[in-house]
Amino acid sequence: MNDIYKQVGFEANEIGFGERPGIAVVDFQRGFTDAGFPLGGRPLVERAVGNTATMLDLARRGNVPVATCYTAYSSARDAPYWKIPPVVNEFHHGHPSTEMEPRIYDADYDVVYCKTGPSIFFQTAIMQFFIKERVDTVIIAGCNTSGCIRASVIDAFSYGFRVIVPEPCVGDVDDGPHRNNLTDVGRRYADVVDLDTVMAYLEEVRKRND
Amino acid sequence: MNDIYKQVGFEANEIGFGERPGIAVVDFQRGFTDAGFPLGGRPLVERAVGNTATMLDLARRGNVPVATCYTAYSSARDAPYWKIPPVVNEFHHGHPSTEMEPRIYDADYDVVYCKTGPSIFFQTAIMQFFIKERVDTVIIAGCNTSGCIRASVIDAFSYGFRVIVPEPCVGDVDDGPHRNNLTDVGRRYADVVDLDTVMAYLEEVRKRND
Amino acid sequence: MNDIYKQVGFEANEIGFGERPGIAVVDFQRGFTDAGFPLGGRPLVERAVGNTATMLDLARRGNVPVATCYTAYSSARDAPYWKIPPVVNEFHHGHPSTEMEPRIYDADYDVVYCKTGPSIFFQTAIMQFFIKERVDTVIIAGCNTSGCIRASVIDAFSYGFRVIVPEPCVGDVDDGPHRNNLTDVGRRYADVVDLDTVMAYLEEVRKRND
Amino acid sequence: MNDIYKQVGFEANEIGFGERPGIAVVDFQRGFTDAGFPLGGRPLVERAVGNTATMLDLARRGNVPVATCYTAYSSARDAPYWKIPPVVNEFHHGHPSTEMEPRIYDADYDVVYCKTGPSIFFQTAIMQFFIKERVDTVIIAGCNTSGCIRASVIDAFSYGFRVIVPEPCVGDVDDGPHRNNLTDVGRRYADVVDLDTVMAYLEEVRKRND
Repeated sequence: MNDIYKQVGFEANEIGFGERPGIAVVDFQRGFTDAGFPLGGRPLVERAVGNTATMLDLARRGNVPVATCYTAYSSARDAPYWKIPPVVNEFHHGHPSTEMEPRIYDADYDVVYCKTGPSIFFQTAIMQFFIKERVDTVIIAGCNTSGCIRASVIDAFSYGFRVIVPEPCVGDVDDGPHRNNLTDVGRRYADVVDLDTVMAYLEEVRKRND
Repeated sequence: MNDIYKQVGFEANEIGFGERPGIAVVDFQRGFTDAGFPLGGRPLVERAVGNTATMLDLARRGNVPVATCYTAYSSARDAPYWKIPPVVNEFHHGHPSTEMEPRIYDADYDVVYCKTGPSIFFQTAIMQFFIKERVDTVIIAGCNTSGCIRASVIDAFSYGFRVIVPEPCVGDVDDGPHRNNLTDVGRRYADVVDLDTVMAYLEEVRKRND
Repeated sequence: MNDIYKQVGFEANEIGFGERPGIAVVDFQRGFTDAGFPLGGRPLVERAVGNTATMLDLARRGNVPVATCYTAYSSARDAPYWKIPPVVNEFHHGHPSTEMEPRIYDADYDVVYCKTGPSIFFQTAIMQFFIKERVDTVIIAGCNTSGCIRASVIDAFSYGFRVIVPEPCVGDVDDGPHRNNLTDVGRRYADVVDLDTVMAYLEEVRKRND
Repeated sequence: MNDIYKQVGFEANEIGFGERPGIAVVDFQRGFTDAGFPLGGRPLVERAVGNTATMLDLARRGNVPVATCYTAYSSARDAPYWKIPPVVNEFHHGHPSTEMEPRIYDADYDVVYCKTGPSIFFQTAIMQFFIKERVDTVIIAGCNTSGCIRASVIDAFSYGFRVIVPEPCVGDVDDGPHRNNLTDVGRRYADVVDLDTVMAYLEEVRKRND
């Protein structure tokens, strides 16, 4: 279905990997990864946490820059007009829902940003880090596919990076929007790939940086 | 289906209109509105052009700021990694696909920006105009819903605006992604409304500004 | 001297105050306000701390939005190419030089951002807050005039705000660059005023919001 | 004078050139380069035009990305609060003051952006181009040193680039602010160098890219 997009000219080519990857990990904070929170612990997210941990372990051994983030505000006053009350009312500095997921975050290696919009690129300093590291390829992991991942993919693309989304490393509340959003971005902005493909690339990078 | 989003806390409230609207019209350029171009003339886009023209006529009579845009590059060298060859190869400065749709664009009233990413907010001067005009509510029209509209909604939300999407004023290549993307943004970032609702609001604004 | 700027058309008008102010307080963190740190405790900065505290007290009583910030990095790896070693090597998350100056920061009222460039507007969420608060006039305080203040003034102007710099609320390492930079921005982007002028305006705003 | 900055830790090191330069040419448009316009034809700017033309000739032979820009608005309505009437009232799309200086602009090679703030990086697509070209070093030319050059240097630095300012390639209305602003940025954000130094570097790059 929807092949009409391909017929008129969408998804006509792959983008491919570049020379210097950077990894952007989006919103793997307890509010999403821990089932004790209203928005937390969805199965697709749990799957993505495990796969991302595997990917990050290899990336760090290859000295690949890893940027991670959580969403938090000082109060509801400075939050945007979210239609999701737990984000506005609980994602405040110091609240446990804003703590980084320990299976993901390595405080000695990763650079962590507080973000306030859906995209990890929106008004955070990630660009400063990725440019200094001469990144040309952004690999995106995290949650949710139909929210903050979609937004982060758009921005990484807009800034001129090659964008790669390993499907098993992104998760969502439900499968339909997860799939639909990967289809949307795969038509336009990014290569949607499996975990093996990304692991093989990162292994090459690790050997080169050895 | 997908009510699981509502169950966990998405789409729990409406955002509502504020006091000062601004209208952002995305990519109503001949490459999308004219069937003579590869990506042009899709029925949902044709419908959106007509409805948007109606809305803009009222908005201009009410002195509401109108920002419009087209996508164009100097060459393929400075374009991002689009997977849509007509955008990379034809949307160049001076090419007829970058001309504004005459049913939409009023050169004596609208402010026009050249954009280079999906979002009308990405690296254009629209913020400068909307802040100077003290806009607090952004109404988004244009195409395509599953591409540049989705991206523009995310950015308008991220900047702290109230975001309104009149469904009949946005169009797409096909109906499925059009609907799915409106569902995604209506859960999180924006109120998706019908044309009458926006027209009634703009008529109120027009009377107030009279 | 330098009247040649006025002769050719610079500084031809005042900007004036708008209806809704927001205050941006830049880098009043211990690394600059405490003489125990290499860059800290300069007399002009000490003067600015006192004056800004006075201004903020009135602003908070008038419900005026106050955004404040500090500069910090995860490590030298993610810092930009500063030519000032203490910034790169000491302004790290958790280091005492990044703690907010207690005479300035009110954790119950102010919204605080971590910034990584000179400008408080560069890749921070201040725009989200100021737009939601419908700010049209940005009053800038902090340090240093010839560094982060200059940068913040440029960005506030670029975003379309009316920009006001109360001279006694900004400080620097030395007087020459302090004066020269106020001259530069006063010719182009901002009204440079005394403290009484800002206090009278904020008192009006306070009465209106009462 | 002002050695106090060095004493406390400013300007403690050089930044140095990286591997891949990009050139950002700021506001060499007739409104500044042609003495027939109110702000045009200042001697320091005329000097900078000649030196920049020399530098760009070598850069293009080395396939170095060149981004250039002009400042223009649709009308005074969408311009920010400039205190310089000729900018607000004459720098409109289609006005001769917005035409590119022919000694500088090569339409077959350069990528040109319309900008609306002082900085060539503020809300233009230059980042997209420079990231795609994998630029790590930004060389800045143009006018005026105490206005748009200062702003562009700050942003290039903030994005994480190595920033180089060849003094003979930037100009201003008068010499004092020209020198003072180079001192300010040389203490913090950029290496201020002579023309020979940049030419030797670009010649190396040209040979490498041959």
